[in-house]
Amino acid sequence: MKQVHDKLIGQPVSHIDTPALVIDLDAMERNLSQMMAFAKSHQVRLRPHAKMHKSAALAKLQMQAGAVGVCVQKTSEAEALAAEGVDDIYISNEVIAPHKLTRVVALAKTLAKREGRLAIAVDSLAGVQRLADAADEASLPASLIDVFIELDVGHGRCGVHSSDAVLELAQEISLHTALRFAGLQAYHGRAQHLRSVEERRTAIETVVAIVKQACTVLDEAGLPAALITGAGTGTFGLEATGGVFGELQAGSFLFMDADYASNEPDPAQPQFEHALFVKTQVMSVSAEHAVCDAGHKSHAIESGLPRVRGGLLTYANGGDEHGILRPSKPEGELPALGEVLWLIPGHCDPTVNLHDQMIGVRGGLETGVVEQVIRVDARGALT
Amino acid sequence: MKQVHDKLIGQPVSHIDTPALVIDLDAMERNLSQMMAFAKSHQVRLRPHAKMHKSAALAKLQMQAGAVGVCVQKTSEAEALAAEGVDDIYISNEVIAPHKLTRVVALAKTLAKREGRLAIAVDSLAGVQRLADAADEASLPASLIDVFIELDVGHGRCGVHSSDAVLELAQEISLHTALRFAGLQAYHGRAQHLRSVEERRTAIETVVAIVKQACTVLDEAGLPAALITGAGTGTFGLEATGGVFGELQAGSFLFMDADYASNEPDPAQPQFEHALFVKTQVMSVSAEHAVCDAGHKSHAIESGLPRVRGGLLTYANGGDEHGILRPSKPEGELPALGEVLWLIPGHCDPTVNLHDQMIGVRGGLETGVVEQVIRVDARGALT
Repeated sequence: MKQVHDKLIGQPVSHIDTPALVIDLDAMERNLSQMMAFAKSHQVRLRPHAKMHKSAALAKLQMQAGAVGVCVQKTSEAEALAAEGVDDIYISNEVIAPHKLTRVVALAKTLAKREGRLAIAVDSLAGVQRLADAADEASLPASLIDVFIELDVGHGRCGVHSSDAVLELAQEISLHTALRFAGLQAYHGRAQHLRSVEERRTAIETVVAIVKQACTVLDEAGLPAALITGAGTGTFGLEATGGVFGELQAGSFLFMDADYASNEPDPAQPQFEHALFVKTQVMSVSAEHAVCDAGHKSHAIESGLPRVRGGLLTYANGGDEHGILRPSKPEGELPALGEVLWLIPGHCDPTVNLHDQMIGVRGGLETGVVEQVIRVDARGALT
Repeated sequence: MKQVHDKLIGQPVSHIDTPALVIDLDAMERNLSQMMAFAKSHQVRLRPHAKMHKSAALAKLQMQAGAVGVCVQKTSEAEALAAEGVDDIYISNEVIAPHKLTRVVALAKTLAKREGRLAIAVDSLAGVQRLADAADEASLPASLIDVFIELDVGHGRCGVHSSDAVLELAQEISLHTALRFAGLQAYHGRAQHLRSVEERRTAIETVVAIVKQACTVLDEAGLPAALITGAGTGTFGLEATGGVFGELQAGSFLFMDADYASNEPDPAQPQFEHALFVKTQVMSVSAEHAVCDAGHKSHAIESGLPRVRGGLLTYANGGDEHGILRPSKPEGELPALGEVLWLIPGHCDPTVNLHDQMIGVRGGLETGVVEQVIRVDARGALT
């Protein structure tokens, strides 16, 4: 088990060394409450994506608040969270390697013993058959693994492309007693980041139409999809009201990032606060700029550079370990040597994956106190 | 201490789960031999940047081959490598926080006891004074810490901007007995990635001119710079022949990455082979593309997407956990479900920082055997 720096607990924010990943716990909890209230009022299940926080403590917090379980993308992520007590996990992604499917099946057994459950996505006959082979090998009891068929609803990555292909996979799944056909995985990742509400609405209308068509074909064949699962922080309000989705997978809402904050707000969705920050310090100042000690080894930049909390400064890429800071307005001032700044990461998921721990602060970033040091249990869990 | 999967040792390459970071040990050792031969023939010291591999085992390998020590960027990187037996370390970066300077001083003492040495860079009077305060607090013996003054030679990040500022800092350093003025840090990071040899030559000519001017001022003041240190994999041949540099800090040569490979080769420098790869597997295939299980949580993409070894396929961004593969030529074929592919990362430094271990293979990527599992000791060492 990875160690965290729990000596920080009870210390003021000023004691957190830089750079460090810090959670504003008050803001995070408000985000979670808002999301749970939304799911409840729309009568949809929430299964947040834990690929975002990779933390068993946060997965359990979400489940205590009413989430039915969590999603992950990788077998090793599922194993890391299960090892710390998370017992309802959906690998919303394809697994093809037979030795990895052996691990998937072993994990399904473990979770079932704890009255939990494992689910997985498939998009090929070979995928279903290899999963079934691994289940047979382990003499898995009937219906132990929930299997969702991934349908490409516009994202252009994994997933089958027709209702006929969905039916073919559903029929194959139904041949294997250890597997239970659980429904459809229908996630449009690119739609999350379309900036205007109108663009996102159009994209999700298409998603819903594709899903409805597949459901009709499945119904006619007597293999109905029990659950449609998908959606993300950018569009979940549209999936929730689209009439087919029974489960939302949004994850980033918990922390919010600069990229999602660039979307035109959808009045049909709750608005979330930034709750994840990189604490950084100015380590060099020249006449033209200041340099802070957080570069892209501290925060992911593939979805854009971080914003500096407060807006007075603008962050430019300074490489792996540095950020270049300049005033956002010509009349603005440079920060002083040693000054502490807070960065709002461009993209929370890969930012969290750079860190072994997240430091949870209660009472605000200026005068708060460290309440929790949250281990990133599945950091680097790639396989 | 982080654990590595040493059960892999002696296993064939096919047993390495995907995605995984894999070193072609034969290629890596050829790169190291070439670089050492170059440094020897040009009578310059080699102090490779360990911010690239973050591994004590590789730092020690480099020092056994003739490197005088290693550079790091962070105090915690230095601590992680020192804990595993690396004893000559230069923090080629500014440290400002007093509590971190206390750690720097403690580390200097530890290394001195092992007949090693710690060095650090400064670019402000406050930085020198705080370092001296920490040294006084710990009653550090005379000349225990080597201090390099960072001069901005065109990179536009840290460093002072004039010979007068260099002199002022050298004078300040000379006032503190625990500190030894060791010379100048003169690194032009942006010059490394200028694509043409001519652009790089022009940039480093400017570097050399700026350094010479500072040296003249220091000589006249009776505070000569004993050593000029800098250079990277893109330009080190130019620094080595520029007449002022006594030490090269190049690090990426050991692994090479797709970004450095895009430079026009300089005939004055040895050419290096790709020695670092991400092993990945095809997990989904559609009519238009295939999807592999390595996304930007497996390899950094801020300096460009990875190239697929062999060149027959082109990698497109598929998000955190996926890569989209298409034939590089219209007549090319898609890979099959389950097929293994090897990615050449765009940028090796932040790629290594995503992984807890690097799997060292002897005898080639197709039929080789795992010889070593190399821990990334300073992974996530940000502070």
